[in-house]
Amino acid sequence: MSYEPVPEDKFSFGLWTVGWQGRDPFGDATRAPLDPAEAVNRLAELGAYGVTFHDDDLIPFEATQAERAAHIKRFRQALDTTGMTVPMATTNLFTHPVFKDGAFTANDRDVRRYALRKTMRNIDLAAELGASTYVAWGGREGAESGAAKDIRAALDRMKEAFDLLAQYVTEQGYGLRFAIEPKPNEPRGDILLPTVGHALAFLERLDRPELFGVNPEVGHEQMAGLNYPHAIAQAMWAGKLFHLDLNGQSGIKYDQDLRFGAGDLRAAFWLVDLLERGGYEGPRHFDFKPPRTEDTAGVWASAAGCMRNYLILRERAAAFRADPAVQEALRQSRLDELSRPTLEPGETAGALLADRTAFEDFDVTAAADRGMAFEHLDQLAMDHLLGV
Amino acid sequence: MSYEPVPEDKFSFGLWTVGWQGRDPFGDATRAPLDPAEAVNRLAELGAYGVTFHDDDLIPFEATQAERAAHIKRFRQALDTTGMTVPMATTNLFTHPVFKDGAFTANDRDVRRYALRKTMRNIDLAAELGASTYVAWGGREGAESGAAKDIRAALDRMKEAFDLLAQYVTEQGYGLRFAIEPKPNEPRGDILLPTVGHALAFLERLDRPELFGVNPEVGHEQMAGLNYPHAIAQAMWAGKLFHLDLNGQSGIKYDQDLRFGAGDLRAAFWLVDLLERGGYEGPRHFDFKPPRTEDTAGVWASAAGCMRNYLILRERAAAFRADPAVQEALRQSRLDELSRPTLEPGETAGALLADRTAFEDFDVTAAADRGMAFEHLDQLAMDHLLGV
Amino acid sequence: MSYEPVPEDKFSFGLWTVGWQGRDPFGDATRAPLDPAEAVNRLAELGAYGVTFHDDDLIPFEATQAERAAHIKRFRQALDTTGMTVPMATTNLFTHPVFKDGAFTANDRDVRRYALRKTMRNIDLAAELGASTYVAWGGREGAESGAAKDIRAALDRMKEAFDLLAQYVTEQGYGLRFAIEPKPNEPRGDILLPTVGHALAFLERLDRPELFGVNPEVGHEQMAGLNYPHAIAQAMWAGKLFHLDLNGQSGIKYDQDLRFGAGDLRAAFWLVDLLERGGYEGPRHFDFKPPRTEDTAGVWASAAGCMRNYLILRERAAAFRADPAVQEALRQSRLDELSRPTLEPGETAGALLADRTAFEDFDVTAAADRGMAFEHLDQLAMDHLLGV
Amino acid sequence: MSYEPVPEDKFSFGLWTVGWQGRDPFGDATRAPLDPAEAVNRLAELGAYGVTFHDDDLIPFEATQAERAAHIKRFRQALDTTGMTVPMATTNLFTHPVFKDGAFTANDRDVRRYALRKTMRNIDLAAELGASTYVAWGGREGAESGAAKDIRAALDRMKEAFDLLAQYVTEQGYGLRFAIEPKPNEPRGDILLPTVGHALAFLERLDRPELFGVNPEVGHEQMAGLNYPHAIAQAMWAGKLFHLDLNGQSGIKYDQDLRFGAGDLRAAFWLVDLLERGGYEGPRHFDFKPPRTEDTAGVWASAAGCMRNYLILRERAAAFRADPAVQEALRQSRLDELSRPTLEPGETAGALLADRTAFEDFDVTAAADRGMAFEHLDQLAMDHLLGV
Repeated sequence: MSYEPVPEDKFSFGLWTVGWQGRDPFGDATRAPLDPAEAVNRLAELGAYGVTFHDDDLIPFEATQAERAAHIKRFRQALDTTGMTVPMATTNLFTHPVFKDGAFTANDRDVRRYALRKTMRNIDLAAELGASTYVAWGGREGAESGAAKDIRAALDRMKEAFDLLAQYVTEQGYGLRFAIEPKPNEPRGDILLPTVGHALAFLERLDRPELFGVNPEVGHEQMAGLNYPHAIAQAMWAGKLFHLDLNGQSGIKYDQDLRFGAGDLRAAFWLVDLLERGGYEGPRHFDFKPPRTEDTAGVWASAAGCMRNYLILRERAAAFRADPAVQEALRQSRLDELSRPTLEPGETAGALLADRTAFEDFDVTAAADRGMAFEHLDQLAMDHLLGV
Repeated sequence: MSYEPVPEDKFSFGLWTVGWQGRDPFGDATRAPLDPAEAVNRLAELGAYGVTFHDDDLIPFEATQAERAAHIKRFRQALDTTGMTVPMATTNLFTHPVFKDGAFTANDRDVRRYALRKTMRNIDLAAELGASTYVAWGGREGAESGAAKDIRAALDRMKEAFDLLAQYVTEQGYGLRFAIEPKPNEPRGDILLPTVGHALAFLERLDRPELFGVNPEVGHEQMAGLNYPHAIAQAMWAGKLFHLDLNGQSGIKYDQDLRFGAGDLRAAFWLVDLLERGGYEGPRHFDFKPPRTEDTAGVWASAAGCMRNYLILRERAAAFRADPAVQEALRQSRLDELSRPTLEPGETAGALLADRTAFEDFDVTAAADRGMAFEHLDQLAMDHLLGV
Repeated sequence: MSYEPVPEDKFSFGLWTVGWQGRDPFGDATRAPLDPAEAVNRLAELGAYGVTFHDDDLIPFEATQAERAAHIKRFRQALDTTGMTVPMATTNLFTHPVFKDGAFTANDRDVRRYALRKTMRNIDLAAELGASTYVAWGGREGAESGAAKDIRAALDRMKEAFDLLAQYVTEQGYGLRFAIEPKPNEPRGDILLPTVGHALAFLERLDRPELFGVNPEVGHEQMAGLNYPHAIAQAMWAGKLFHLDLNGQSGIKYDQDLRFGAGDLRAAFWLVDLLERGGYEGPRHFDFKPPRTEDTAGVWASAAGCMRNYLILRERAAAFRADPAVQEALRQSRLDELSRPTLEPGETAGALLADRTAFEDFDVTAAADRGMAFEHLDQLAMDHLLGV
Repeated sequence: MSYEPVPEDKFSFGLWTVGWQGRDPFGDATRAPLDPAEAVNRLAELGAYGVTFHDDDLIPFEATQAERAAHIKRFRQALDTTGMTVPMATTNLFTHPVFKDGAFTANDRDVRRYALRKTMRNIDLAAELGASTYVAWGGREGAESGAAKDIRAALDRMKEAFDLLAQYVTEQGYGLRFAIEPKPNEPRGDILLPTVGHALAFLERLDRPELFGVNPEVGHEQMAGLNYPHAIAQAMWAGKLFHLDLNGQSGIKYDQDLRFGAGDLRAAFWLVDLLERGGYEGPRHFDFKPPRTEDTAGVWASAAGCMRNYLILRERAAAFRADPAVQEALRQSRLDELSRPTLEPGETAGALLADRTAFEDFDVTAAADRGMAFEHLDQLAMDHLLGV
């Protein structure tokens, strides 16, 4: 079995991932900057099909218009040469100190207006480069102390910002949809829209909810101790899984951005099982950071590992679902019954009340005595995961 | 200053709180059962205005119809004598082994139908007793292993259940609204609708979303490391804070249900500040467990402490907001600017693009240099909390 | 490759594991009691070599002397028939309400004395049954509030208790050693000696430290977000790994006691690698709880899964270490250098100061530029774990 | 009541705290560098008595010998002028990329030797400046993946390093003692000696354990969900609380370094109660980071807040202990009994066995029925904390 990625696998990487220089809260950079064109070339060689970027990954914050044009041109040439796509783009609204109290929800109104303009500029570029998804991670939208942010006012400002951006892409005729990326904390003590659920709920109150979905990141959901595949399933159920960020995280702690497969391996298995069975057709996008212990060779080893692990897990999940013993075990655990509606077709509340077998004559004890056989089923999954 | 609760404070308690016998995963009961009528009497004496219940708190699971009627009669008498109200009721869909794999999302279809009937029966009683909110905590709706639950199918079943119940209360003309109570885990490894956000998002897909809100519990949100006041603020912003459960929790660990004020005291302060300023008019409902180290006297001391702490914090929050130094500090931190729309009235995307002061001529460095003065503001809050 | 356990694998189980009835904080028992003799028989059939117990697992708390003798006799017969051993025993100092504030550190002195006597009685039985390790889990030694327990006084009482017990086993000539089992919380808000480290530190202050080691449990260390293999390594390094409890846990939350292999699979791999390479010769003891969704068949499937997963991981870890590519990768990551002393033989502080190559002439930049090649190494481990 | 700090309060600050420029994993610096002499002057004005430093805080990493001397001279002048002391110093073994895989336990032997020399150089300076404690935080001693670090070998190297340093200070006749600072994770995925317990255990295996204690930091212990006052109590009990780092942390997440009093306020109250009653005579040392939202004025407001909060809590804790109602409540909760030995003077195991009142005639039920009255006691503590 080969685990060599090909473009049809739709693997994409952020420029900021392989380009991360290894600066962390307690240490200086351990690696030199990586030229975006070089990133495109190497990722193409490794088998990826796409690359994504923050505006500032591609064009330094202080660049002049001429420099900006040159950076974009050089990047497009790399894309053209390699055939790599740009499925998604996003805005850096967190690195510069001007965003220290947020961007769309900064207390300072002029910062909010500046953040909108910075975003609109990069939306233009995203559309120009053919992106179909625009990600919004509000990493600085939050607070460390209680009075510093009026949350309801901040949500008003967040809605105002997204409504304006949706108006803009609509008027411009861009084919872009927005994907909101939740995170519970870091770099702020508490971030607004901390989980997939909060983001899904928020977007329902926007003027054009159909243009908004979510971009859940493995580690972000796991930083709140939540089950990532469950979050993805709820996003799919709501028709809102527009994009996703794959990486690894070892439990509730600082944001680790490990390569995909590292961290919670079993959750990664169930995730791939869900994506592959569930009809997700978007990019398999990696948002990871090669550890700062690595040199350039280690960076590419780490990137290759992300894709390799996805392919191994895809194979294992497919074998799990195809195994007749698994199918029998699923029936023993009554997964087929879960897929069957609880009510008969057209059954009303009144009809249910009239059904004595549902309540008055229901043998509660007998029902309670039935084993669910989940341990047997889960051991079969373990065996398939481990390739036994 | 007196901190004696009165009915106008709208404090309510679950029967299961003061009635908790102290059985935990590693230990047997340390207290005798508490007669519900006795609970009503004592809570009334302490200054509460309401009491809430699960069906099985009031009427033992195995009771005959005659026993059921007698239990209800006795409870009503206590309510009538004391003037206590029943603002909310809920269903126990977790204690009996028949619910070991869930209720509305159990893999077994007959268990799901039974759960619906058990709920409908108690909705009738809730309406009869004058409750306006019906809480649904799906504590067993979840899984410990990946294949045991198809999450999308389970959400379909959950929707089916709530749609039926909403149809039922509508047809019956009950004035009830539903409040979904999220929890991330325990007693299941992962529970569906794990946070306030996930529940808010889910209810938007129901047939009658207007009948559904949330019932956030302090400890449940904090078990995921999330900021409870932020969750309450988002629920308010969405118009969905129908009810809430006040208690205490010391961080991410097992569900502690400490008395209100214990655990994260500063979060409790900001919560009370938010509820009192934010126009929440529902019950201040305590869902706590007096520690099993306590005898009956300790139970009532713990219950009284819940209310006392709320009243102290209410006083402190009011003083904080009334303090001119605080009002000046809020201005220094530009909270007034956060409340002002980012756009001018009627300003479009195009108009924003044309405003050079917003971007081309914006002095990013000067904006970045402005301090937010949050530490000064937060220290004022600390001083008020501590009564300095 | 066969993954059928045999007695030489030294797998042991607590009676309370397969015997767990499924009572949890929110639910009643889902399974009938399991006869200890039946547990011995079935575990022997599955390939285990030993069984362990709390006094109350074997002999009900209220048993008379005659009943006690009968229970012991029946248990011994099962052991004799099957050839099963009792490598370890322990005391239940947590279920009965008398221990609600602790046992060795209860505020009530008579409870402390009673706890000592209950322990001494079971130590006699442990010695009689041939156990070599006596585990002490102080699950109730802790507090939920700050003034309720004077921690320094409590540690004095804990030391007093262990010193007495050590005196007792010494005087009796029992071959027993004690293994302290740490846990951070649950059922108490905070438990004394919360991690392997705290327990290792504590035992150094006992009168007979040589008789004391630790019994680390996978889930307990992971409930504090700590790396279990690291804790085991430190216990080994200190010569104090006397016993251990294998199970699974999905991160920081309530105590899950999943079957071994569930939860953090990669940590389980590194644990088995460490135990097998590190010369640990004690029992591979499982302290898990078959989920309450399971019937009896599920209980045995779960128990069998614990052993199967250990054997699979043992095979994979051995293959990892034997692989020449891994050995080369370890060298590239300079693990061989880590095993080499930092100082030359006999090198003193003065000599190190005189070595200009160590500091004055050290090329910091060149050293900083070396990659550690950890990602390549870790991907090799992933491949071996997954059997690729 | 005044909460103005004076030197007798023994408040000290790290240069790196008020000097933190606000660079975080997602953002650039928001504040200009702070001159160490300026820091000394301002801290003295605010009422601190001491200042602490990493070598690189005072002398830039790349400084020449002449520059080094000038920096030290300027710092000494500020100390002399203000009367400020240097109670503690420490080494920066984490910022420079050369330490990306650790210092004393780096896989690269030459890095380990360099780290020792860098430390020895700063120990000389610490002694010269009159410090009595030398802190060792091994923030980079750890790993993100399982094979990258052989933990037992790493502990050997750690021991080798500390033994050498202890030999050095002994030979030099420096009055320094070492305080090891534990941390569970960040910047490494898992750090060696992750908690106070692990550090206490480790130092018992050193050649000169009497020279080693711990330097526990509030946030570090809370990042593992552990009770910080409990950890401090165990360190005191072991005679090993040599120094400590005061700050705030909001639960299990990234390292926040909030000002003291922020985060878990109740834990801060119990900590101050413990330090003041427990005879701790060392510095009250703040290791916090003024949030990057703050400008210089905010930095000093934050620093002042640390001291103010300590003084408020000191007052409140003293009032709590002096209150006759509290003293009565402590007796009701039998804290006096906890302080009394469990055994009679000279009582042996045999004598305890002979005491029928301890077991055979002990009324377990009556003992179990006694309430502990902890909720009443804890509410008294809450009242005192809140100044009611």
